[in-house]
Amino acid sequence: MSLATLIEARYGLAAEAGSGLSAEGTLAAMLARRVCRDYAERPVHEELMQVLFAAAFSAPSKSDLQQASVVRVVDPAKRARIERWLASMPWIAGAPELMIFCGDNRRTRRIAALRGKPFPNDTLDMFMNAAVDAGIVLQAFITAAESVGLGCCPLSLVRDHARELAQLLELPQWVFPVAGLTLGYPAAPGALSMRLPLSVTVHRDRYDDSGFEAALEDYDRRREAARPTPRAKQRDPERFGTADRYGWSEDKARQYATPQRADFGAFVRAQGFALE
Amino acid sequence: MSLATLIEARYGLAAEAGSGLSAEGTLAAMLARRVCRDYAERPVHEELMQVLFAAAFSAPSKSDLQQASVVRVVDPAKRARIERWLASMPWIAGAPELMIFCGDNRRTRRIAALRGKPFPNDTLDMFMNAAVDAGIVLQAFITAAESVGLGCCPLSLVRDHARELAQLLELPQWVFPVAGLTLGYPAAPGALSMRLPLSVTVHRDRYDDSGFEAALEDYDRRREAARPTPRAKQRDPERFGTADRYGWSEDKARQYATPQRADFGAFVRAQGFALE
Repeated sequence: MSLATLIEARYGLAAEAGSGLSAEGTLAAMLARRVCRDYAERPVHEELMQVLFAAAFSAPSKSDLQQASVVRVVDPAKRARIERWLASMPWIAGAPELMIFCGDNRRTRRIAALRGKPFPNDTLDMFMNAAVDAGIVLQAFITAAESVGLGCCPLSLVRDHARELAQLLELPQWVFPVAGLTLGYPAAPGALSMRLPLSVTVHRDRYDDSGFEAALEDYDRRREAARPTPRAKQRDPERFGTADRYGWSEDKARQYATPQRADFGAFVRAQGFALE
Repeated sequence: MSLATLIEARYGLAAEAGSGLSAEGTLAAMLARRVCRDYAERPVHEELMQVLFAAAFSAPSKSDLQQASVVRVVDPAKRARIERWLASMPWIAGAPELMIFCGDNRRTRRIAALRGKPFPNDTLDMFMNAAVDAGIVLQAFITAAESVGLGCCPLSLVRDHARELAQLLELPQWVFPVAGLTLGYPAAPGALSMRLPLSVTVHRDRYDDSGFEAALEDYDRRREAARPTPRAKQRDPERFGTADRYGWSEDKARQYATPQRADFGAFVRAQGFALE
């Protein structure tokens, strides 16, 4: 099998790229990545956890500021609280490990104080740097974990409960959750998310999305053909009815037709960010 | 050599974790990652570029929304413009490839319009989702590239010129640059960035940074011992003088003692984000 075969499965399109490269190593694992929501009871060895964290935090960081932190949730009472908040995802309880990846601008501010310097940077840029650092460490952790046969599922839904979560985990000012992550050895293979074609996501010299609408129709069709949405899983049928032709774009349009996490901005501001 | 040896080099601390694992594969590459600012003239084959993009966009995405886009800058005139803006980094001109990784909330909004749905989500959350998606794809691209012997350097400095860059690359409303990335085959090994100890970045059940100040002193010392800052490289000596004991924390405190990218928030708002 070649990398082209994996690219074809991921994008649902015939691929020439990768036809001469065999499907092994890091690239193959990244292309074949699947979310994991069904975990074996086997725990993750503590030594391996430390190696994974060491690898994840080796990732690049904006200006070497290292503005990401992770809180591992091990205490059963705290895990139970979080699992109750995420009751729509009952499988979380079966995950051996649960972590919260946070943006962390607190250390940068403590350093300014410790070194006797002003910090005239109450900017949106500063907030984004911390959020992106957390995303980078999250992605590095996932790649590291999957390279040794573990499975993961990122949970942005934890931000629906940002205020309670910050209280539960004692997240101080300038620290905010970006995503949760469950981790463990897969009990069953998860689903493979088909991706938009690179013609839509990779541009040359100028952003050009003139072909988006046509590409979207094809993508919806390919995705539904590979993994049809059951009629009963259509989102919000009371409001939008049941569609004969349903797909990714209809689903995403329905998802964001309702305000999502409208209070997250207020939470981030309460954590100290002026977002100027 | 074991993974523990690589962890020791990265963190400057004796490591027990990883002592039984040999230093090979994805974990070893991630732990040994170095930034690359010196590229051989050898171009990156177009087929490989496509494989790297395919692998990078296979990474997880918030709610499968896929809110990241990349603009490859190939046109020599456009590259020259960007290189002039980043004149403090003359090595960029020698990089075979230059890309701009963007947060992209535009497709999500177009989908709402195409599917006839409202979009009541002018939130900070929405902006953060797109920024973090871009960071995740950036990190996935770097890991993919390094796994085949390529070297990279992320460039957040492109955001110092966000408005001009958006004009040059025709970034429309709801699209914003998160970071640039240079890519090529390394001509010389880059420097290894030592990382804060995991005792500072990984917490258990509650965020606890009571040991930060002591850990910071040790970290500054280890980092300077491994790679001393030349006296001439101390930041802003006119304002802060020349310190006998200089280190990471003094350097970062000096960097952010001056407003950085104070206009980025205005740029993002002008791109359409209300950040509620």
